[in-house]
Amino acid sequence: MTTDLPRKVAAELVGTAFLVAAVVGSGIMAARLSPDDVGLQLLENSLVTGAVLVALILTLQPVSASFNPVVTAVEALLGHISWREAGLYAVAQVLGGTVGAVVANLMFELDAVSFSTQERTGAGLWLGEVVATLGLVLVVFGAVRSGRTETIAFAVGAYISAAYWFTSSTSFANPAVTLARMFSDTFAGIDPASVPVFILMQILGGGLAAALVHVLFPTADDPGGAT
Amino acid sequence: MTTDLPRKVAAELVGTAFLVAAVVGSGIMAARLSPDDVGLQLLENSLVTGAVLVALILTLQPVSASFNPVVTAVEALLGHISWREAGLYAVAQVLGGTVGAVVANLMFELDAVSFSTQERTGAGLWLGEVVATLGLVLVVFGAVRSGRTETIAFAVGAYISAAYWFTSSTSFANPAVTLARMFSDTFAGIDPASVPVFILMQILGGGLAAALVHVLFPTADDPGGAT
Amino acid sequence: MTTDLPRKVAAELVGTAFLVAAVVGSGIMAARLSPDDVGLQLLENSLVTGAVLVALILTLQPVSASFNPVVTAVEALLGHISWREAGLYAVAQVLGGTVGAVVANLMFELDAVSFSTQERTGAGLWLGEVVATLGLVLVVFGAVRSGRTETIAFAVGAYISAAYWFTSSTSFANPAVTLARMFSDTFAGIDPASVPVFILMQILGGGLAAALVHVLFPTADDPGGAT
Amino acid sequence: MTTDLPRKVAAELVGTAFLVAAVVGSGIMAARLSPDDVGLQLLENSLVTGAVLVALILTLQPVSASFNPVVTAVEALLGHISWREAGLYAVAQVLGGTVGAVVANLMFELDAVSFSTQERTGAGLWLGEVVATLGLVLVVFGAVRSGRTETIAFAVGAYISAAYWFTSSTSFANPAVTLARMFSDTFAGIDPASVPVFILMQILGGGLAAALVHVLFPTADDPGGAT
Repeated sequence: MTTDLPRKVAAELVGTAFLVAAVVGSGIMAARLSPDDVGLQLLENSLVTGAVLVALILTLQPVSASFNPVVTAVEALLGHISWREAGLYAVAQVLGGTVGAVVANLMFELDAVSFSTQERTGAGLWLGEVVATLGLVLVVFGAVRSGRTETIAFAVGAYISAAYWFTSSTSFANPAVTLARMFSDTFAGIDPASVPVFILMQILGGGLAAALVHVLFPTADDPGGAT
Repeated sequence: MTTDLPRKVAAELVGTAFLVAAVVGSGIMAARLSPDDVGLQLLENSLVTGAVLVALILTLQPVSASFNPVVTAVEALLGHISWREAGLYAVAQVLGGTVGAVVANLMFELDAVSFSTQERTGAGLWLGEVVATLGLVLVVFGAVRSGRTETIAFAVGAYISAAYWFTSSTSFANPAVTLARMFSDTFAGIDPASVPVFILMQILGGGLAAALVHVLFPTADDPGGAT
Repeated sequence: MTTDLPRKVAAELVGTAFLVAAVVGSGIMAARLSPDDVGLQLLENSLVTGAVLVALILTLQPVSASFNPVVTAVEALLGHISWREAGLYAVAQVLGGTVGAVVANLMFELDAVSFSTQERTGAGLWLGEVVATLGLVLVVFGAVRSGRTETIAFAVGAYISAAYWFTSSTSFANPAVTLARMFSDTFAGIDPASVPVFILMQILGGGLAAALVHVLFPTADDPGGAT
Repeated sequence: MTTDLPRKVAAELVGTAFLVAAVVGSGIMAARLSPDDVGLQLLENSLVTGAVLVALILTLQPVSASFNPVVTAVEALLGHISWREAGLYAVAQVLGGTVGAVVANLMFELDAVSFSTQERTGAGLWLGEVVATLGLVLVVFGAVRSGRTETIAFAVGAYISAAYWFTSSTSFANPAVTLARMFSDTFAGIDPASVPVFILMQILGGGLAAALVHVLFPTADDPGGAT
């Protein structure tokens, strides 16, 4: 199948839009339907995020399905794609994520954009983001480097559903999604002031993961394999 | 395997009947067992709908497993099936869905048919139906156009479970199921007056998705592939 | 792989024992941990049953993994196994199911056997058992007849998790499991007096399903395929 | 792919660290977010553990993915790996599990190590651990012995999620994880005094499972297959 660049950029935009719409939209629905039970809210939000990742990766993987600038950067770092390609994907991911947040707000008849006031800060949460992103990148490239890309959708969906619960930060683990979650003052939101350190920690986790991938999967069975 | 038309029509009828029985029946059970917790009700209803879609698509896909007039129409639009075939399937889907709603009512010792009084209307919900159907059709034809039909059951089940939560309308996304859900005045019901605009929005979402499929998957690897 | 009869009989016994231990054991745990929320209890019980079916079928399918006398009878009816084999499996399934119920009781420090007093009767529930078993047998033989046995574990697990909710009877759908569930006076139990009609309805559902399988899947791609 | 010993040992360490971080971390999060609902806590904890096992096994299986000294010992017993290799893996698993517990504590801003005071003792719980481990080892080696290692991640994840509920002990079923769970005085913790009998029961369950594997899967299709 031909996989030319504009289509790939479009796939990253559409996929990240649906991903963020799912994260933000299910957060709004969960807060409305389970108002007094924050545990149930996170269960609903985490199952939805995992499920939509399974669907989106299965759907868009034949074109391009990273939806995450850290994953995209590690792909470039490992030589699977060029840095120019990576930059275009990252722009598409951030743009798509913003569209997704706006669409979620509108579906629930909220203002198109309202900045979140949900502070997310502190050493525990930052460590959470490092661990969350380290695990995510390891999951993606464990499959890519051993030529088992058909398992990525299930591995990533399962991982993220779990990481919402086992990391203290509820596992943002994605700079494009983190930026987009500023634009909704709802369950899944993040105060803009909390964003920079979150993204820094995600980059750190991604870097550590890249090193670990080198150790655990030194030879790539399928170096050109699309994720 | 031979896949002659009468068997395919029968499969669409049986499959849509089980799908609607699952949507309506689990809605009744959820409302009875979790009467004071509407969040838990939707969690139960959404997990059941996703799970039954996985089972039904895996089971009936070797014959025919669209269960949805919008999906069937896009199949005709993209040249995978003839419009005459599509028309027969749509009739079977609507008929099957009605049978499913009646069977669900009877299993729970309710009147065979009672029209729903659950109004579902408003701009937010309508946008929800456009987004829900757009995503569903993209998920189905992303797999069909790249020749990966063995993943559709999991992608569709995961997508619909998620879309119940992230779209404001709880993702009907299917005209046959929407019509059938008029016939049960229970959790999953929809007031007949709300149905026409819902179906219109589903058609709109399907049309947008068909355009998007053309952009993202311009060449069909498997143009005759059954969904 | 050799698949001689004693091993197959042993696999049916072990598998049905674990299946019933999971159904009864998770029912006890759910009633203890979620005492005031019967909706949550059924959610827990249904997810566990579906999950253990995925695990058990994946594990024992290379030997034998029906765990259900109705499924076994339909296999004989369709000529996949001999009636003598079917009889031996059914005995092993009933025996295994009983062992499973006893082990579950003992793990939770209850009497090894205590007859259930949970009455389950009425036209709605009986229709529920017909529908539940019809669907289950269709799911199993849809895969068997189209040579896609690798999907059965996921299809059956997903189907049963869903059918717990969408049938009014919570989907026993299995005579061996129904008999075994007499032996525990806990959440998943069934009063012995309610058992005969349940089993009759399951046989009726299985018979209807066999007819439907003949219509939808007239030619078996893999007539000797193990389920 | 080359799978030299140091990489395998590293994979066992990293995988067990993430597994325990998920078990302990999600236990802490569940207790914080669902403080008054111990049923919901176990549901959250069990779904997370199953999901992370799916992700970790899919990711690390091309290198090494047992994460469990009993599974590793049975691998040695059945001749798949040497006893020296098994010893190294077990050390890595215990070390990794401890790292995972510490990281979980730190993410949630607790002391790096605090010994659990959660007593887990009694005949019912001990029988629970025998059953839990017997089932787990059967699930793993059923797949290994019939050459279907690609299903192990799903079978193990589904099995463990279920076994949390159907065994009275909530299915520790793993000596490395049991030891690591001493180091967190939180939901998933275990009082050090309760550990020795738990591990003894796990070894007993593993031994029974090894015998059962010999009966059910007498010939190994893939004796050298990595788990």
